[in-house]
Amino acid sequence: MYNIKIIGRGICLPEKVVWSADLEKENNWPENYILEKHGVKKRHWVTKEHNSTLGAKALANALENAGLNFNELDLLIYASVSYDCPIPTTGCAIQQVGGWEDSGVPCIDVNSSCISFMNAMEVAGALMLSNSYKKIAIVSSEIASRSLHPEAEECYCLFGDGAAAFIMEPSLNSGISYTKFKTYSAGYEYTGIRGGGNFLHPAGEEFKTSDAYFHMEGRKAMLFTIRHLTDFIAEIESELNRSVSDFNYIVPHQPSKQSMDYFINKYNIHKNQMHNILMDYGNCVAASIPIALYDAIEKGKVKRGDEVLMLGTAAGITLGALVFKY
Amino acid sequence: MYNIKIIGRGICLPEKVVWSADLEKENNWPENYILEKHGVKKRHWVTKEHNSTLGAKALANALENAGLNFNELDLLIYASVSYDCPIPTTGCAIQQVGGWEDSGVPCIDVNSSCISFMNAMEVAGALMLSNSYKKIAIVSSEIASRSLHPEAEECYCLFGDGAAAFIMEPSLNSGISYTKFKTYSAGYEYTGIRGGGNFLHPAGEEFKTSDAYFHMEGRKAMLFTIRHLTDFIAEIESELNRSVSDFNYIVPHQPSKQSMDYFINKYNIHKNQMHNILMDYGNCVAASIPIALYDAIEKGKVKRGDEVLMLGTAAGITLGALVFKY
Repeated sequence: MYNIKIIGRGICLPEKVVWSADLEKENNWPENYILEKHGVKKRHWVTKEHNSTLGAKALANALENAGLNFNELDLLIYASVSYDCPIPTTGCAIQQVGGWEDSGVPCIDVNSSCISFMNAMEVAGALMLSNSYKKIAIVSSEIASRSLHPEAEECYCLFGDGAAAFIMEPSLNSGISYTKFKTYSAGYEYTGIRGGGNFLHPAGEEFKTSDAYFHMEGRKAMLFTIRHLTDFIAEIESELNRSVSDFNYIVPHQPSKQSMDYFINKYNIHKNQMHNILMDYGNCVAASIPIALYDAIEKGKVKRGDEVLMLGTAAGITLGALVFKY
Repeated sequence: MYNIKIIGRGICLPEKVVWSADLEKENNWPENYILEKHGVKKRHWVTKEHNSTLGAKALANALENAGLNFNELDLLIYASVSYDCPIPTTGCAIQQVGGWEDSGVPCIDVNSSCISFMNAMEVAGALMLSNSYKKIAIVSSEIASRSLHPEAEECYCLFGDGAAAFIMEPSLNSGISYTKFKTYSAGYEYTGIRGGGNFLHPAGEEFKTSDAYFHMEGRKAMLFTIRHLTDFIAEIESELNRSVSDFNYIVPHQPSKQSMDYFINKYNIHKNQMHNILMDYGNCVAASIPIALYDAIEKGKVKRGDEVLMLGTAAGITLGALVFKY
């Protein structure tokens, strides 16, 4: 479908590690409450870092890993939800803070909430079909922490910050063999940030600071998502004529402990068959899948030639699946 | 390069028309000051409309024009700068407010500032090369007016709100024969909105309402852009072995009167050879190019089989060109 190979990878995490044990003390929650309920032991939260500085470092690492200079790229795709500024795009900001401001390498942003990386992979693969693009970088860099309020406990305990970058090029030995995406906006209200855009403009009279925090009706979102995920996975299994549990390895989005446990149990997935980084990173929004993929490659869980199922759900609500031979 | 045909088109403008004459009176500016200096006689500004409501109406019009139902789409690309909410994406919001919330049609956002529509056209064309996507809608819907402050005169006088939508499908008779994009983030600071993302988070202590307004160092931005545009157009002319003035018709972004006058004079473009909607719509950010294209088709300036040069500059700073046979 798309002959595309990962030739470089990098990540960058904010310096500050935030332990759940410390959050429990600060908020007078019982010991181990966060780990047991939300599955997160620690996560990184920014102090001075921006989406662009994290993203530029992850990209510099990926370029070094690929043995490439930034100037050799044909395109930079920023695949994330959060951003430095409403305009210009954060892809441009990454080009600037990385010191590549005179390179001319074009930058575009692709956003499908938490599964942006998967859509960006498909876009990169498709653009390579035209032979006009040979080397494409995809960067996901998320800062959720600034949009978290302790009173929105479910979000506050769950989300982390971080960035990952991958360099891709055309190849006959690797590639995407299958993609599937579905959006059901009947679940639009279940999770998101209401204020900050034109719906509740931050310079408007009706805007309140509380509108700028992440909200999640976790149980409603999960029930809605599970209903659609059941049909979604049935279609995937039918179209591929194989069970999701037949895949060597699954690199999923890391939405929550409950939803990942549900998936493992329902589809008879062995724990060693699915990459779980929730405990150490939290849910890093659109950076979760690429950070998990990076971690899986580093730890030898995904080796050259392995076929990986990427799977995720996202605010919107959007569901996505992508089969990738690494 | 990409065999892609426009099979439906639609626009939607906010109800409220704002006349430059009225702005001049309100701000004690001389009569005809805005028209003479900024080239804008009137523009639409929202009252109650959102990016999603404008976008959904434009899309409904385009679907009707194409004789299609929303459910027949394989993908909705929202190609804009401004948004309803920071998350979920505005593509999902359009699906919801359009009444298509159970359709499952996947939604992604593509953003390269003012030239997002061109990048989205290339992405749509590329995705069709895979044969997995047959019908793709691109929607650009911009609300600039909420981010305008009268004291930032250049922006206040220039920008308008509006939306346009196009439906695309594969075709051997139409298509994109050439694209070129370049980003030079050395000009990142010249235009944009600093506050509202993680750089100056709207819930943060340092955030001031004034950070949420559009700023533009117009002269610096124009000089910087012209410098790069000169090389950019020289490359295009060299690669295509023809002069930009040889194109039947040019549908440009509508950045400002000065920059459009400069372009016309420098490259010997006949006024009837380039579509100018600045006077009636203002600069509608990423909706400018698709609204101009819609208007050009409606007025018979672009007919089936005509080759159109789309050309634009965008915050970032990004330059883009795309040759499309309608």
